[in-house]
Amino acid sequence: MDCNDPALQSWVASANDPACDFPVQNLPYGRFRRAGDPDWCIGVAIGEQVLDLRRAGLIDSSDMNRLIRLAPPARQALRETISQGLREGSDQRAKFQAALVPQADVELGLPCQIGDYTDFYVGIHHALAVGKQFRPDAPLLPNYKWVPIGYHGRASTINASGSSFHRPRGQTKAPDAAEPAVTASARLDFELELGILIGRPNSQGAPIAIDDAEQHVFGITLFNDWSARDLQGWEYQPLGPFLSKNFASTVSPWMVTLEALEPFRKPWTRPEGDPRPLPYLDSQSNSERGAIDIGLEVWLQTARMAQAGHAGDCISRSNFADAAYWTVAQLVAHHTINGCALASGDLFGSGTLSGPEPQQAGSLLELSVGGKQSLQLSNGETRTFLQDGDSIILRGFCQRAGARRIGFGECRGTVLPAHPEA
Amino acid sequence: MDCNDPALQSWVASANDPACDFPVQNLPYGRFRRAGDPDWCIGVAIGEQVLDLRRAGLIDSSDMNRLIRLAPPARQALRETISQGLREGSDQRAKFQAALVPQADVELGLPCQIGDYTDFYVGIHHALAVGKQFRPDAPLLPNYKWVPIGYHGRASTINASGSSFHRPRGQTKAPDAAEPAVTASARLDFELELGILIGRPNSQGAPIAIDDAEQHVFGITLFNDWSARDLQGWEYQPLGPFLSKNFASTVSPWMVTLEALEPFRKPWTRPEGDPRPLPYLDSQSNSERGAIDIGLEVWLQTARMAQAGHAGDCISRSNFADAAYWTVAQLVAHHTINGCALASGDLFGSGTLSGPEPQQAGSLLELSVGGKQSLQLSNGETRTFLQDGDSIILRGFCQRAGARRIGFGECRGTVLPAHPEA
Repeated sequence: MDCNDPALQSWVASANDPACDFPVQNLPYGRFRRAGDPDWCIGVAIGEQVLDLRRAGLIDSSDMNRLIRLAPPARQALRETISQGLREGSDQRAKFQAALVPQADVELGLPCQIGDYTDFYVGIHHALAVGKQFRPDAPLLPNYKWVPIGYHGRASTINASGSSFHRPRGQTKAPDAAEPAVTASARLDFELELGILIGRPNSQGAPIAIDDAEQHVFGITLFNDWSARDLQGWEYQPLGPFLSKNFASTVSPWMVTLEALEPFRKPWTRPEGDPRPLPYLDSQSNSERGAIDIGLEVWLQTARMAQAGHAGDCISRSNFADAAYWTVAQLVAHHTINGCALASGDLFGSGTLSGPEPQQAGSLLELSVGGKQSLQLSNGETRTFLQDGDSIILRGFCQRAGARRIGFGECRGTVLPAHPEA
Repeated sequence: MDCNDPALQSWVASANDPACDFPVQNLPYGRFRRAGDPDWCIGVAIGEQVLDLRRAGLIDSSDMNRLIRLAPPARQALRETISQGLREGSDQRAKFQAALVPQADVELGLPCQIGDYTDFYVGIHHALAVGKQFRPDAPLLPNYKWVPIGYHGRASTINASGSSFHRPRGQTKAPDAAEPAVTASARLDFELELGILIGRPNSQGAPIAIDDAEQHVFGITLFNDWSARDLQGWEYQPLGPFLSKNFASTVSPWMVTLEALEPFRKPWTRPEGDPRPLPYLDSQSNSERGAIDIGLEVWLQTARMAQAGHAGDCISRSNFADAAYWTVAQLVAHHTINGCALASGDLFGSGTLSGPEPQQAGSLLELSVGGKQSLQLSNGETRTFLQDGDSIILRGFCQRAGARRIGFGECRGTVLPAHPEA
């Protein structure tokens, strides 16, 4: 039986709940550690449990960056073995049972050691909305529909879900001020993104063809690229955002594999009249199945909500397939057309995945129209940008008739007050 | 006797040649390996030799990223021990002698494992000259004299000196073309930079004060940030250069320590009328000694020159202190003002270090005035941008009356023809 068959049930009861993110059809990979243990283990999420792959006798290394480098046949064989062992009726149940640990009892870390981090800009509705605010005369630049725009980011400040970070300080300049000043950011924002984890590397000087591109991708996570809009506006020309982004990013713990996402592939199309991609970004397979239908949600939980035991408000809903102008395969092909070498554990941020409607925006910059319109929250609070103590929780899931729901878990981060001055 | 005392001589005869880059006053750190050995060793250059620190009994690990993390007192003690042992008359001579290997017999690698790579833009003469070509109406943007402009680069394609790389392909768009096309870059360039290697890390959320900044810097190398100007012009807005830079960079093997550069510190000043830096970028110590007097040279050796045994032409001469608008300490303080975490082995590129005169430019974009004026080479060839088979060799050295000359060795890279299409 195919690992994605919706009829499959697991002997791990919590995995069979239809609302569960981690049914036996999902089997996402992540790193966890038990209390008091300094070392990370490799696990697969199943229901409310984690399967410790080493304890289950399935791998002999705790190096996730080695595991994600597996060639696709070996990767698929491992998925098949895990799936078989966790299915109802498996003869491996006793062995696997002994390797289970409740997710609630472990710390979930970064999914792997992150190498280079590239942030793309595939959200065309986001690019248009932000472009209007930063460059009213030219919101979408002439290269946007030709070049999958991307830039390099900072890997050392990518944090695991559940982390908090200090509100950044930095240079800002008010439009009417003669000179800049150092302030704590007053326009702190989130960005709703997906994280694309590279599994198999390529050699420097050896571009990856679009139809080979997905062989190099291991899986997908949620990703929040926190942004200080006031720092960004003053610093970003001519070489792009820097300190406005590199103080913190947050990634969710579970890498959902392309194999698990298979039932949610969609044709990739462009609006009538938009240019056809250049040949290295164009293929029949990419057009037929390049997109992925992933529903996305942003939740805001203020400090007051947290104190009251309130899980937060959903402030935006979007979908990867509607938001993205480029596919995952196109990003890989573009990143390597010049011979750039990708390594196992490299992370691509998708860029902010705003849907076409204003309420589907993936940042407060858009939701508050540049800080001009307050969001009304369910407990009477309001927000334009983030306040100290606010948490942002990203969620993602795939669902359609005839397939089991595949979830991404959550990507959570909390804003602390600005650090003391140096 | 102080390790920088110009009167010090070494029992390694080649180190006493006044033209030598590596006298006993220098002692730069690098990684090397012997033929057939897959593992890198830590060495210190002395004359034409390398001292294998492990064989000399001075360290017990081959992990350079651990060594560069040493606290300054331990780092200085190690420098003192190495200096004592290599001096004329040392009682350690026999032990050290057994740990020497000729540089000509080993492969020199990357000086350490590079973490995150940030490229700055401190060369104000470069910023002005390039700004005139990309944005004639606004060559120097309003933030330049306030913000030490920087952006993130790609670590995975930073190559050791001596490497060659394929000319990149990518999207370019001629000014009169209706649409872009994929071509091999026809405007391939070098950038004369220094590389600044971070030794001691800081924690996320903990900015580094300007007067503590140099405690976090281990040493300085030469650095060539190869650039494809035609790719750059089409892709760089709005998020900065990406594929036009990340196909290859080259770093020299030897990290010259701040201790060795001590005799070449200079006051840091700004032209009359320029703004005083914001407080986090300003200190008495930075003003009194923030600059470093490092002479720089760019040599071009064409394939035809190499065949004829011709070492190449010097096509530019510049100086770090004249070219840089910001100091090393200011870059560290700026990079962390927002709480960004630096790690051991992070590399800062200085940005292109063009001097104030046209012939002191640190790129062909400047030397050829955007490709409009050919350089005449001594063998009758001409260049606007780089041709296949061209090598660029960067050299650097400090010299002044009353101090021994301190050299950086060389940073060499060679252009191969474009890779086959994917």
